Amino acid sequence: MEVKDAHALARFDAQAMTKTKLFATVRFFTDVYGLEPGQVQKAHAHEGSDKVYVVLEGRARVSVAGEIADLAPGQAALAPAGSAHGVENPGPGRLKLLVYMAPHPKPT
Amino acid sequence: MEVKDAHALARFDAQAMTKTKLFATVRFFTDVYGLEPGQVQKAHAHEGSDKVYVVLEGRARVSVAGEIADLAPGQAALAPAGSAHGVENPGPGRLKLLVYMAPHPKPT
Repeated sequence: MEVKDAHALARFDAQAMTKTKLFATVRFFTDVYGLEPGQVQKAHAHEGSDKVYVVLEGRARVSVAGEIADLAPGQAALAPAGSAHGVENPGPGRLKLLVYMAPHPKPT
Repeated sequence: MEVKDAHALARFDAQAMTKTKLFATVRFFTDVYGLEPGQVQKAHAHEGSDKVYVVLEGRARVSVAGEIADLAPGQAALAPAGSAHGVENPGPGRLKLLVYMAPHPKPT
């Protein structure tokens, strides 16, 4: 069985946010992001794939289609296919973010 | 923007585990399950859809294709399409479990 520990696998880099793969199939993928305070994933969009952000630890400032929401642990936001979305860590602590997207935009 | 609080939306019922929808699109769905100690989701399988279990709070005893693993908060298990999978709350506390499946087996 594939089991992954998102807390243990989250990495942090002073230069930029990080992404660590948890699972990937032909149907979806799941990553854990690590963002130091002030780090950002710039707004971007995926045609044909929906994405979800779920806060595991810290705070996330999520933008979807121009709307902004601050999320606490256990809160989740949906970025529907085609909508511009991004995330920032407003601090003061580190942000661990579970991210999944379906379908996988580049299945291997 | 669709934002959901999985902790706040998790429900508990002394009779049986509960499922509460967080998000559903044509591509995937996400639920939060609430299991009192001893409650179970019996092993079952979905042809063509992968499922992930992520522990938000408590402990989960997950089975996938006959293997068993105990998961703590932040840990996640993959149940690939077609593999028998289920989950139990071994206690002592309540279990809040984030669950997502892609593609959505019954898109509306």
